Amino acid sequence: MKYPPVHYHNYLGLDKLLDSQKLKSLEYGKPAHDELLFIIVHQAYELWFKQILFEINSVMTIFSTNPVEESKLGVACARLERVIAIMKLTVGQIDVLETMTPLDFLDFRDVLYPASGFQSFQWRLIETKLGLRTQDRLAFNQSPFYKALHESQQQEMQDTMTQASLFDLIEKWLERTPFLNTDSFDFWKSYRGAVQNMFQDDIHTVQSNPRLSEEEKKKNTLGLENSLKNFDALFDENYYENLRQQGQFRLSYKALQAALLVQIYRDQPILQLPFRIIRALLDIDETMTTWRYRHALMAMRMLGQKIGTGGSSGHKYLADATAQHKIFTDFFNLTTFFVPRSQVPELPPNIAKKMNFNY
Amino acid sequence: MKYPPVHYHNYLGLDKLLDSQKLKSLEYGKPAHDELLFIIVHQAYELWFKQILFEINSVMTIFSTNPVEESKLGVACARLERVIAIMKLTVGQIDVLETMTPLDFLDFRDVLYPASGFQSFQWRLIETKLGLRTQDRLAFNQSPFYKALHESQQQEMQDTMTQASLFDLIEKWLERTPFLNTDSFDFWKSYRGAVQNMFQDDIHTVQSNPRLSEEEKKKNTLGLENSLKNFDALFDENYYENLRQQGQFRLSYKALQAALLVQIYRDQPILQLPFRIIRALLDIDETMTTWRYRHALMAMRMLGQKIGTGGSSGHKYLADATAQHKIFTDFFNLTTFFVPRSQVPELPPNIAKKMNFNY
Amino acid sequence: MKYPPVHYHNYLGLDKLLDSQKLKSLEYGKPAHDELLFIIVHQAYELWFKQILFEINSVMTIFSTNPVEESKLGVACARLERVIAIMKLTVGQIDVLETMTPLDFLDFRDVLYPASGFQSFQWRLIETKLGLRTQDRLAFNQSPFYKALHESQQQEMQDTMTQASLFDLIEKWLERTPFLNTDSFDFWKSYRGAVQNMFQDDIHTVQSNPRLSEEEKKKNTLGLENSLKNFDALFDENYYENLRQQGQFRLSYKALQAALLVQIYRDQPILQLPFRIIRALLDIDETMTTWRYRHALMAMRMLGQKIGTGGSSGHKYLADATAQHKIFTDFFNLTTFFVPRSQVPELPPNIAKKMNFNY
Amino acid sequence: MKYPPVHYHNYLGLDKLLDSQKLKSLEYGKPAHDELLFIIVHQAYELWFKQILFEINSVMTIFSTNPVEESKLGVACARLERVIAIMKLTVGQIDVLETMTPLDFLDFRDVLYPASGFQSFQWRLIETKLGLRTQDRLAFNQSPFYKALHESQQQEMQDTMTQASLFDLIEKWLERTPFLNTDSFDFWKSYRGAVQNMFQDDIHTVQSNPRLSEEEKKKNTLGLENSLKNFDALFDENYYENLRQQGQFRLSYKALQAALLVQIYRDQPILQLPFRIIRALLDIDETMTTWRYRHALMAMRMLGQKIGTGGSSGHKYLADATAQHKIFTDFFNLTTFFVPRSQVPELPPNIAKKMNFNY
Repeated sequence: MKYPPVHYHNYLGLDKLLDSQKLKSLEYGKPAHDELLFIIVHQAYELWFKQILFEINSVMTIFSTNPVEESKLGVACARLERVIAIMKLTVGQIDVLETMTPLDFLDFRDVLYPASGFQSFQWRLIETKLGLRTQDRLAFNQSPFYKALHESQQQEMQDTMTQASLFDLIEKWLERTPFLNTDSFDFWKSYRGAVQNMFQDDIHTVQSNPRLSEEEKKKNTLGLENSLKNFDALFDENYYENLRQQGQFRLSYKALQAALLVQIYRDQPILQLPFRIIRALLDIDETMTTWRYRHALMAMRMLGQKIGTGGSSGHKYLADATAQHKIFTDFFNLTTFFVPRSQVPELPPNIAKKMNFNY
Repeated sequence: MKYPPVHYHNYLGLDKLLDSQKLKSLEYGKPAHDELLFIIVHQAYELWFKQILFEINSVMTIFSTNPVEESKLGVACARLERVIAIMKLTVGQIDVLETMTPLDFLDFRDVLYPASGFQSFQWRLIETKLGLRTQDRLAFNQSPFYKALHESQQQEMQDTMTQASLFDLIEKWLERTPFLNTDSFDFWKSYRGAVQNMFQDDIHTVQSNPRLSEEEKKKNTLGLENSLKNFDALFDENYYENLRQQGQFRLSYKALQAALLVQIYRDQPILQLPFRIIRALLDIDETMTTWRYRHALMAMRMLGQKIGTGGSSGHKYLADATAQHKIFTDFFNLTTFFVPRSQVPELPPNIAKKMNFNY
Repeated sequence: MKYPPVHYHNYLGLDKLLDSQKLKSLEYGKPAHDELLFIIVHQAYELWFKQILFEINSVMTIFSTNPVEESKLGVACARLERVIAIMKLTVGQIDVLETMTPLDFLDFRDVLYPASGFQSFQWRLIETKLGLRTQDRLAFNQSPFYKALHESQQQEMQDTMTQASLFDLIEKWLERTPFLNTDSFDFWKSYRGAVQNMFQDDIHTVQSNPRLSEEEKKKNTLGLENSLKNFDALFDENYYENLRQQGQFRLSYKALQAALLVQIYRDQPILQLPFRIIRALLDIDETMTTWRYRHALMAMRMLGQKIGTGGSSGHKYLADATAQHKIFTDFFNLTTFFVPRSQVPELPPNIAKKMNFNY
Repeated sequence: MKYPPVHYHNYLGLDKLLDSQKLKSLEYGKPAHDELLFIIVHQAYELWFKQILFEINSVMTIFSTNPVEESKLGVACARLERVIAIMKLTVGQIDVLETMTPLDFLDFRDVLYPASGFQSFQWRLIETKLGLRTQDRLAFNQSPFYKALHESQQQEMQDTMTQASLFDLIEKWLERTPFLNTDSFDFWKSYRGAVQNMFQDDIHTVQSNPRLSEEEKKKNTLGLENSLKNFDALFDENYYENLRQQGQFRLSYKALQAALLVQIYRDQPILQLPFRIIRALLDIDETMTTWRYRHALMAMRMLGQKIGTGGSSGHKYLADATAQHKIFTDFFNLTTFFVPRSQVPELPPNIAKKMNFNY
């Protein structure tokens, strides 16, 4: 009662909201039943995109401080998890859109020309703010992607492209992870030892296996030695930078190492939230990829070999973009450098203590 | 190119749509992060409600003609199935809303007072158009439910309450089902015979079962005779009307019989779409009930024993309404009158032929 | 290559697994197509129940030590979250089972008599291990629930009923929460002060509101004073114990207070995992309740007013049990005692420091 | 009571079922918590695969007769829809499996070597029975895919590969569609006319558009003429056969035409179930593709650049197979040949009458 009474109808702005569905097919005198569904699905997407942007912005604010406050990590993690929940919902919206059959779509498809999802400002903002760069994007129609946006939005998009993304902020935050190298503990030296021991053991197992022929032994040993060499990317900074320049990695060397530390020692209380945050970023990437893939399948179903409303070769472009428009690929690839927990070097007690609460 | 070019941004009215989220907490100088989610979830609900109403209206138009065109049944069925798909999606939206914790809700709860989902005009329209009557509604606050609506909407709601609902139209359509009683085939007589035979067999099985004592035989026989009596509702119109006046049934006697015929002989081509339409109505009822239940659970979680924003006793009211606000209950109860397929009377060939295509 | 090679088929025991579907309808010479679905859905349930039990047991092991190791909380939380994921999946299985229509079920229903989900040992174990007590269970057929189990399982069930449940272990763990009362900080005193200030403010707002009549002021003030009295349960141990004996609460006084502390100060690093664990327990309760409800709806659909295969009054019993068989109700009700974050007493710096990492 | 009483526990064979999880990690003395989840997820998959095969077999039986009974189409359609529901559920199981992190998988990954999903007999049977041919399969390891199966299953797989698939049966059924060409109605002639009119109109619109330059007119006209040429595949059997031999189509010319007729005139009562059956096959293909894609993403997440347990290059192979292992692609591509409903030639009344019921 402290505030003037509010009615649901006014609070949600329903007069405006429910008056925002203008059917083109109706305007041109050829009313098509399914156009309303088409509009409402896309409006629901845009509402959710607004929410996703709001959450991403708030998480970026948290990660923009140096250091990031420990007491903000729980909130940051919860908001990323909310983004995942929303994205899962939007994947489900495709089930609803697919209740429209291609023939029904054809009833109003030509009145929309050339409107297309390519022109969604908010979706492009989400991608860009998360960290998708121009060079990561699949080229389309020889024209920069932001040229498809409404004129009034192109400048803001270009500005956003020059600002730090969530990827960048997370990278800097990871680089500042303590414990990577302290006086009493050189994680990389001990991890490298563990990796080498593991492979030596494996090679010994091969060499002493009476069931294997000499040739098989040679071949298997070679395979193991090659696997061992893969780990050089982790232990040899120059080699890593080389691979990074070739585009095989994006994270800085130090950030990659920190991400590995977080993964390997995640059970230490201080690493639990960082671990959950990395997992949430992986989930966001995976759910966005799933969304793109379902969207591409739907486009194929709706259009066959026809070109998309935006003039793209439709399905083909979408399917290719699905594979390429990933952002946190390094976190996926990190797995390559894991060793089984039984081989992970134990933390010295003084380090373990620092990673725990001490009240 | 026949029409002026359209841009996604303008087509979807995004300027208006994305400007419709006015945070009360901001207005009062106490910005609460989760209020945006709260608004957007409810706006997404209202967008979907608009779509559901559009589909229900179109289905009602189809069922308003006499006779209903056979070539419209496929479309009617598909639109009801779309309503189901949308309702399943809206159940999923609760997962998103539950990423807001009760403490986060408390940050802005008092600025919304007394706004509440009870005031959703579209939801009430959906219920009413499907067939929920005033007498089916759980009383709340001694005031008719439509008094909670925005003043500008109360008259339209009262008008809608006096019009034929989808329930009414389906009932009339079912009543007109041919084949219920033809010269050559009296379905009810043969069905009644089948039911009696089935129970006579069962009673005989009991009586001749050497493992049963005399007392057990008596008890089991009595049980079977009572079950047989249940079927009287189906075969004795006066008895049925009696039960109907007591509120145990709502469908007219003839419509109930037709619904049973459709269920039992669904595999006949002419009954396939009616069967699917009845099933879709059941699914709509069930999904709405699930939505109400999840909503009630969420309210309990969000508010504990506190009263809802609409002044209701929150969870309790919602839980009770869940159980009571069903519409197509008769279709659920119809199962009571099924007999196993092996006992179903076979259709005479001339009837079966009429239920099939003949090209 | 360290271990003998394994084939997928043998590893999963598929010979045995895929030979475990014995159709009774086939055995009795009346093959019913949908019986296989019925068996496989229930076998899939039981596989998942085994996994759920495995996770619950491992979480109980973690919470059985005193103190519970901080470095185990992340794992415990992840396993509870896995239980939620599994339960959500099993809710989805109902969609699959509902592709069977009641008429199809009738084709084999009588050959199963009196088999029933009531006889599922694993489901009863899950409920019991989580903390459902005999007195919480809805009475059924005048006979203890475990009498429905297979004879070979009744003893194990009775033994489990005498052991500490997860509810009990969580309660003890919460009771040991530090920070509830330290030399420098009496949480309860400061929380009580905050609550009183909040209500005094509200009463003052009412009293000085020129739009309210004297009568309205009196009524509203009374309402606020009653709300304030509700909080006595939190601040007056005797009063709480009284309510607890009446069954309004189950958690010990101290555990309830600790749960509130965790909720209110969740952003402090040391409380993040406890907060997430409590939320996971709430989610488990809510998902189990949703499952029960969907199951009850399905039963109603499948059986109408017929009695269930287990001889129960089917739908009715299931619906009532849904409402009653909750376990962590206190965590839901806790919300009643929340105050908005702006009113929450700030932690003294030395306490906040102890709740954080200090490396 | 006609049959001996049955207990849930025995009916479901739970002794056997719940004793089928043999942890290799335990056998080798290195118990890994998550191995049970890994086993149970895959066992649940195999249970569902058994059900899917059962349904596909029953649908194949229905489509094996000539003619296919109209009164069986409803059942066939419902069973295909059940397959879709099951496949959607199995997509959801990936969410459960992803609660296992890569590090947890590493704890037992080497004891499973070289077991792999490639060795799933039932999955390969599903693909083969639906219609995936050897030439459609992405080559893997230079060895026929069935060589990965258990020895005891390779012969049955090879036999299945020589039998008619569901694709083949559906093709034959479509070819027999009446109405393709009757005395009074040549669908193809009138459809071709409609297509030509539509394009002539479009070309005229371009030519008379004052906003277009001569060059733009020329370019747009050329584009429309090319689109028109695409339709030749539909109207010129020789051209179609040519494309078919190049692998661009798989369906016979007549079956493709019938499928188009069904799509275009779906609202005619006799075409409703055929339309729904084609849609169900599309949905099955799309859901299997989604499953493969989610599975590929999960593999990438679990293994990074590591090779899969089956020795494959893991993620890469799975992603490529996703794109290639489609079966009913022609039904997707059919959309290319749709014209808007307003352009579809109207059925002559005598044909429309034959497509309807006449009681």
